[in-house]
Amino acid sequence: MSEQPLPGTQVCRHGRGLFVAFEGGDGSGKSTQSGLLAAWLREQGAEVLHTREPGGTALGTALRELVLHGADGSVSPRAEALIFAADRAHHVATLVRPALEGGNVVITDRFLDSSVAYQGAARRLGHDDVRQLSVWAVEGLVPDLTVLLDVPTGEGRARRGEVHDRLEREADDFHDRVRGTFLELAAREPDRYLVLDGTLPPEELAASVRARVGALLGSTA
Amino acid sequence: MSEQPLPGTQVCRHGRGLFVAFEGGDGSGKSTQSGLLAAWLREQGAEVLHTREPGGTALGTALRELVLHGADGSVSPRAEALIFAADRAHHVATLVRPALEGGNVVITDRFLDSSVAYQGAARRLGHDDVRQLSVWAVEGLVPDLTVLLDVPTGEGRARRGEVHDRLEREADDFHDRVRGTFLELAAREPDRYLVLDGTLPPEELAASVRARVGALLGSTA
Repeated sequence: MSEQPLPGTQVCRHGRGLFVAFEGGDGSGKSTQSGLLAAWLREQGAEVLHTREPGGTALGTALRELVLHGADGSVSPRAEALIFAADRAHHVATLVRPALEGGNVVITDRFLDSSVAYQGAARRLGHDDVRQLSVWAVEGLVPDLTVLLDVPTGEGRARRGEVHDRLEREADDFHDRVRGTFLELAAREPDRYLVLDGTLPPEELAASVRARVGALLGSTA
Repeated sequence: MSEQPLPGTQVCRHGRGLFVAFEGGDGSGKSTQSGLLAAWLREQGAEVLHTREPGGTALGTALRELVLHGADGSVSPRAEALIFAADRAHHVATLVRPALEGGNVVITDRFLDSSVAYQGAARRLGHDDVRQLSVWAVEGLVPDLTVLLDVPTGEGRARRGEVHDRLEREADDFHDRVRGTFLELAAREPDRYLVLDGTLPPEELAASVRARVGALLGSTA
């Protein structure tokens, strides 16, 4: 926030702005919903950093390209997890944390939960190890709110249409494990999550997100 | 080993080959010495994989390029550590471990200790955290022998000549911390290290390395 800050966001959460992550499988509508939220907040006069993982930085874009399309098409599972963690470390250190410290609202498409779901559960590297990796990468930064757009696996596949990368090409049981892990993470911390049925109309979803984010910003006044 | 295996290497260390790492600062003579050892072992009829980190694989070469020359010149310290760990994970999973399981001698220029020295100590991310990261990356694989070529910081700088990358450009106190950490790691596990004065003539060093590796191969017969 700078010109016309939303009430309280300059001083909320120990002087930080607000950090909102959108999570969900491919085709769940994350970029649509995060874009609608960013536009609404900007209309309210908020300073917003709308970003994504992987690929929110120049280094991240190069890493995203490597891990999704591969130097020679192969990336071993632990290397994949470590590359996503490297992208996250650089993204948080150079973009997310400075923006939060400046009092901005930071909205990211995907964050730490995606690594736990994709590499920890779906690639079977272990929830705790992968979570610990990312927590180390970001020096403990956790979103104030995570919006989980939950969509059944078959529905997600249909929405994605043509497959684009190594992870999207994985079979349905891989994406079932991803979905199950997201729901499990949300169930562990209900206060920090907003779980929405991603098959609802986009405008209805956007209204639910606005209500929750508005309440968070208001509550910190 | 395949055609004419050195005695015992097929069955040593639970059916594995032998894993030798060369460590030391830039300009310490690692590639000269590892090359001389590889050539000698091949003359003895051994199957040798001579490789390096970062960059021993196609993915690793791309990661090495990114971290040493940067997408936009900047890599945050934790991202740097995670990229080196990703390179190591892929290197071990796709090259080193299969070669060892096939009974080969694997010789690598740099391994886990370089991360502890450069990112853990010199970048001050912490020995234990960085070590744990790499141990996870390689699922616990440790060299049978690490040859440390110890060279005073000033001497290393003179030998390197023109600087080539981000790490080589660091000041002398950075390289002092690197050197100190290598020596400390070696002191903790004297049986697994061969520490040599890297300022000695190359042929003298090569003879010491051959004596130790020969003893290791002989001892497993």
